[in-house]
Amino acid sequence: MPEQQFAIDVERLWKTIERSAEIGIGRPGGLARLTLTDDDRRMREQFRDWCVEAGLKVSVDGVGNMFARRAGRDDSLPPVVMGSHLDTQFNGGRFDGILGVLAGLEVMRTLNDNAVTTKRPLEIAMWTNEEGARFSPPMLGSAAFAGVHPVDWIRARKADDGATVGDELARIGFDGDAAVGGRSLDCYFELHIEQGPELDARRVPVGVVTHGYSVYGFIVDIVGETAHTGPWPMDKRKNALVAGSMLAVGINDIGWRYAESGGKATAARLITWPNKPGILSDQGQFTGDVRHADPAIAKRMRDEFLTVIDDTRARSLCDLKLFDEWHWGADIFDRSMVDLVRDTAAALGISSFDLPSQAGHDSYHVAKVCPTAMIFTPCKDGITHNNNESATKSDTEPGVNVLLHAVLARANR
Amino acid sequence: MPEQQFAIDVERLWKTIERSAEIGIGRPGGLARLTLTDDDRRMREQFRDWCVEAGLKVSVDGVGNMFARRAGRDDSLPPVVMGSHLDTQFNGGRFDGILGVLAGLEVMRTLNDNAVTTKRPLEIAMWTNEEGARFSPPMLGSAAFAGVHPVDWIRARKADDGATVGDELARIGFDGDAAVGGRSLDCYFELHIEQGPELDARRVPVGVVTHGYSVYGFIVDIVGETAHTGPWPMDKRKNALVAGSMLAVGINDIGWRYAESGGKATAARLITWPNKPGILSDQGQFTGDVRHADPAIAKRMRDEFLTVIDDTRARSLCDLKLFDEWHWGADIFDRSMVDLVRDTAAALGISSFDLPSQAGHDSYHVAKVCPTAMIFTPCKDGITHNNNESATKSDTEPGVNVLLHAVLARANR
Repeated sequence: MPEQQFAIDVERLWKTIERSAEIGIGRPGGLARLTLTDDDRRMREQFRDWCVEAGLKVSVDGVGNMFARRAGRDDSLPPVVMGSHLDTQFNGGRFDGILGVLAGLEVMRTLNDNAVTTKRPLEIAMWTNEEGARFSPPMLGSAAFAGVHPVDWIRARKADDGATVGDELARIGFDGDAAVGGRSLDCYFELHIEQGPELDARRVPVGVVTHGYSVYGFIVDIVGETAHTGPWPMDKRKNALVAGSMLAVGINDIGWRYAESGGKATAARLITWPNKPGILSDQGQFTGDVRHADPAIAKRMRDEFLTVIDDTRARSLCDLKLFDEWHWGADIFDRSMVDLVRDTAAALGISSFDLPSQAGHDSYHVAKVCPTAMIFTPCKDGITHNNNESATKSDTEPGVNVLLHAVLARANR
Repeated sequence: MPEQQFAIDVERLWKTIERSAEIGIGRPGGLARLTLTDDDRRMREQFRDWCVEAGLKVSVDGVGNMFARRAGRDDSLPPVVMGSHLDTQFNGGRFDGILGVLAGLEVMRTLNDNAVTTKRPLEIAMWTNEEGARFSPPMLGSAAFAGVHPVDWIRARKADDGATVGDELARIGFDGDAAVGGRSLDCYFELHIEQGPELDARRVPVGVVTHGYSVYGFIVDIVGETAHTGPWPMDKRKNALVAGSMLAVGINDIGWRYAESGGKATAARLITWPNKPGILSDQGQFTGDVRHADPAIAKRMRDEFLTVIDDTRARSLCDLKLFDEWHWGADIFDRSMVDLVRDTAAALGISSFDLPSQAGHDSYHVAKVCPTAMIFTPCKDGITHNNNESATKSDTEPGVNVLLHAVLARANR
């Protein structure tokens, strides 16, 4: 493994991250770089410029996913891919997703420095709309690539401001002509901050992601009846806000019941209409999810939420319908890829431990079309989706070196 | 009482109501005529035209309140005023508020038909933004007239779309030069659909409104913390949506505890931010109220909601602050005015009974500056703030005749 002799340049990586943190500034220290906005365009242009400078060939597909390719000695072989996303939440940090893309760029730059040509080609993938902060569902670009949703359906997704994915891609100049998916990848690595406190608490720089939490997500539509907030008797009220709030409190209670074994449940979004003083709301939509490391417990939490829906129907007198339900299985990642990450860390003398991913990631979709693994790096106190999200050079450098050498191992095999 | 010989023309009144129901059409049969919109402008212009045709002198004050005056024999005396509002909720009906204004117009037309000149002048008052559907708080125009809020403060109120009351008044051409309040009124009558089921259920056409429900309203500000909906542990979560939902469920529970004695409690509005999948919300605002005919019980319900706020602070880990609290007392109306309404109905051979008002009305503010009374007329099943709000000619005619003769009695005394 002669490649062990070289390593990434963390100072260069950090300068790249700091430049990214100037685009789409949010709350102090954080970003609000929503997908397919002008800020997203500026970041995509910056990323493309960096890739071109590094000698990579950039392509964009029909849902705005960007691929930056470095040729292999046998360029007809499927590429080894690294990636993540560059969009953020409304109150996002500067590392979530971004680190995985820019770590890929740093790997490419390091190989250039050392004049290494791999047997297989390499690519960085930058997936559109991972966060789902502007368009639902999240992980839209990787879902399209993996064929989870048809491209037309994805291009028609609407933001709350009325714009569609297709319109916005065209507007910002990233409506590419590359086919969406339908090609072979050798494998996919996604490096990501942990978004949990374990690595930081134990002062271990690399998390080997063995599996995902089992997650059930729900969108519940609510139909009530408008009426005056004053005279209308309690036993006739069908207040969509009350129904939605019962769902929110109910799902939160489920999370608490399973908190001790690491279960979580989230009331993420509640829209009601008209949602104004003086009138009871007659329309609503609730979005939430439950998750647990143990798929059987996650299933139980999911069943309990279905009971909450029934109870809420009875208590609120509103009509409730489960409009959509999604599920991410626990067993996502390729065993040999996971082992490769663990072994690479060991070979480099970097401490690591196994842990599950609790959040959803683009890798969940990509895993449907090629062997996939994730590498977690520490973030301070596990804080994320927050402007105080923080990671340090020394915490991050080992993980990116693991990425570099795991990629090399795959690409040269 | 020679005036008993004449009566209003309910066919003419109904044609006027039907014309109003063509302006700002909402859901089938209903209206969505939000205050200071283009539809509101069209309705105001129509109302002004009708008033001018009836020989009334129209003035507009600095918060858009409109007054249509009919001279008295002694025009220096303070006017006897009838009125209500022409704006509606998002899903409003064609009678709420509108009937009170157009009944006033019908009284004026009836006096014209009969060539009656009263001793005191008469006025119709059309108050701006009674509903509060676009600008908070509701009953804004009458509040300004009664000096409850300074005019500048009212003109600076902002809609969710960012427009201010002052801007919108100027835009629609109803930023009048008449002084806001500061003049004497002899008295104020507000005729209104009951917005409850009592009159309709008992087939009695006139409700003599003796007092208001005692109402406590609340706006609670919520501060949580954004975090990832996945990995963030339950015991660290400060989800503003969960806190707001606990307030909504809690206030609704209070309503149910007092439902048997006619108590009501409403979760009216919950705004949270970012309110998106993938992230916990860190900002929220909840608006709700409790009300009861018995002021002591209303006070108890209010105290229970303060306990709900404290419990929610502890359960949600969010920071909650009572940003605003308002209270409408129960004892609003002038005894001699209430007696006059009851006596006038009796003299006309119209059945009536005493009942409280459960909703807020402009009359609550106007009662602070002159003797005030309300007349309720039936609406089908008590349905209101809903496109199915409905009233019939035969149900309504008696009440408008009571208004006519009560006004004459006051104006000629």
